Amino acid sequence: MNKPLYVIGIEGGGTKTTAVLCALDGNILSEAQGGPSNFHIVGVDKTASTLLDLIQTCCHSVGCSDSQIGAVVAGLAGAGRMQNQQRIQEKLQEDARAQNFHLEKVMVESDARIALEGAFSGKPGIIVISGTGSIVFGKDEREKVYRAGGWGRRMGDEGSGYAIGREAFRMVAKMLDGYGDRTKLLKLFDEKYDLGSSEAMIDAVYEKKFDFSSVVPAVMEAASKGDPVAKKILVHASSDLMEVIQAVQVKMNKGRRSGPKRPLAFVGSLLIHDNFYSRKIRAAIKRDVPLVSLRKAESSPVVGAALMAIRLLKD
Amino acid sequence: MNKPLYVIGIEGGGTKTTAVLCALDGNILSEAQGGPSNFHIVGVDKTASTLLDLIQTCCHSVGCSDSQIGAVVAGLAGAGRMQNQQRIQEKLQEDARAQNFHLEKVMVESDARIALEGAFSGKPGIIVISGTGSIVFGKDEREKVYRAGGWGRRMGDEGSGYAIGREAFRMVAKMLDGYGDRTKLLKLFDEKYDLGSSEAMIDAVYEKKFDFSSVVPAVMEAASKGDPVAKKILVHASSDLMEVIQAVQVKMNKGRRSGPKRPLAFVGSLLIHDNFYSRKIRAAIKRDVPLVSLRKAESSPVVGAALMAIRLLKD
Repeated sequence: MNKPLYVIGIEGGGTKTTAVLCALDGNILSEAQGGPSNFHIVGVDKTASTLLDLIQTCCHSVGCSDSQIGAVVAGLAGAGRMQNQQRIQEKLQEDARAQNFHLEKVMVESDARIALEGAFSGKPGIIVISGTGSIVFGKDEREKVYRAGGWGRRMGDEGSGYAIGREAFRMVAKMLDGYGDRTKLLKLFDEKYDLGSSEAMIDAVYEKKFDFSSVVPAVMEAASKGDPVAKKILVHASSDLMEVIQAVQVKMNKGRRSGPKRPLAFVGSLLIHDNFYSRKIRAAIKRDVPLVSLRKAESSPVVGAALMAIRLLKD
Repeated sequence: MNKPLYVIGIEGGGTKTTAVLCALDGNILSEAQGGPSNFHIVGVDKTASTLLDLIQTCCHSVGCSDSQIGAVVAGLAGAGRMQNQQRIQEKLQEDARAQNFHLEKVMVESDARIALEGAFSGKPGIIVISGTGSIVFGKDEREKVYRAGGWGRRMGDEGSGYAIGREAFRMVAKMLDGYGDRTKLLKLFDEKYDLGSSEAMIDAVYEKKFDFSSVVPAVMEAASKGDPVAKKILVHASSDLMEVIQAVQVKMNKGRRSGPKRPLAFVGSLLIHDNFYSRKIRAAIKRDVPLVSLRKAESSPVVGAALMAIRLLKD
């Protein structure tokens, strides 16, 4: 049996999956892309086969054998629960065995977990994710991981694109019902998404599975034009998200007011760009969370996954 | 052809459907029950066949012919939109024709609309519905109907069982995340519904399609024991619902502060019983909506449907 020389990191989402093969110093030697690997959408079987395909593609492209792959870490969207992580892991190893392909160490994680690892290249820090969903993850100096939020769209995801979009729908509904404040959102809904009436809105939400988060650009536009309703929605969302950030910070410092100053990075479409919302959050963090320093994420989630695989190999 | 002597009123929901056959003075001569007729759940075809079965059962039991049925009005859960009402109506008439059964006048309405008609025996008034969902309906002296709310669970249903239950889940989630206020709800969730951990809650909400409104009894219990979080949830829900009530009241009075004093009745499981929530709403209406008098609903929705059928016959 050869000595392991490489690891593989994988990032999987609802539209695509990326894998990188790295040397043990973290150098990327090969990259491959495949279809979606969110098991909620495509199922466990398809997820496992997509992962195995990418692993084998990476091996072929550098000409290595399975025994030279020391560890694989896959961070997948929707895979926040241990029970599901294990199901995918077992299926992947079973599929590999069936193809006579040996996978020694395999770990499935959530996409947020590998993003945390990538953001600070494995070092301590806090990431605030807000895209369609939201969650806050932190890792302390003892490698202990803390989280808050991320309860999904039906009971959580505070300050997410979904929460902002749903609130925008509610405000437009109230205006159409004759008791909400007047807002530019109604006109923007009509112009941008063909949602100018209650019939169209109800149809979109209940028949066409319209994703609330897709109206966030309209909310940003209305807010930047001074629309008070849009501004209120975003201010409210930012204070919701701030609560989650502070919850993680408090847990990491064991409830104490002091602690080491840690980096904090934004992840996810709503926060990595400059807009009304990200500016609010940025200002609130500077004002209310003194023990962090705002940073850009150092590496991508898929590199985070590879770094975790390197550490797994050493364990 | 015989002269029409009877009408049929139908109330259809997610678990059962009731039909009454009445003489033209409103006297109930026959009643029949069948399975569900919420077309979102059972489909248009099944809904139409359930309605036709009940109509025919009523006819047989009084020994009348189809030509003696002057009009049929069915108020169905989930049938708030005209387009869907027409689909069900057409299917019902098509099925009847195929069986050589003549149905002259048929109208499909929402369950809320027939409840309004039943509550005041066809006279003007306002009904406030809060069960799993919520909506407010009013009818003025010119028979014009006004509504607000009822946008469904994803973007509305303010002050409904669903909204109250969802907020309870959110508050328990925040407590488990370490930043929400302490609440008795966590213990009650565990004791009453086996929801004592985040895993159990996420599983219930995302895998088992747990209906949020089923935790309302726990919220009522916690509030009556003085739990501040439960009280806050119910106070918030009642003020949300008050906004919807006032919206209808303002529309009915064309924005004027004066108008005729109209009856207001509660419909739906949350409001017809005495509890923390219904007391809040009752007190708020007495305080803030002076132009209404609180009443009990006079008749059931199915009788309201029959009254609408009698009026339809006279039109």
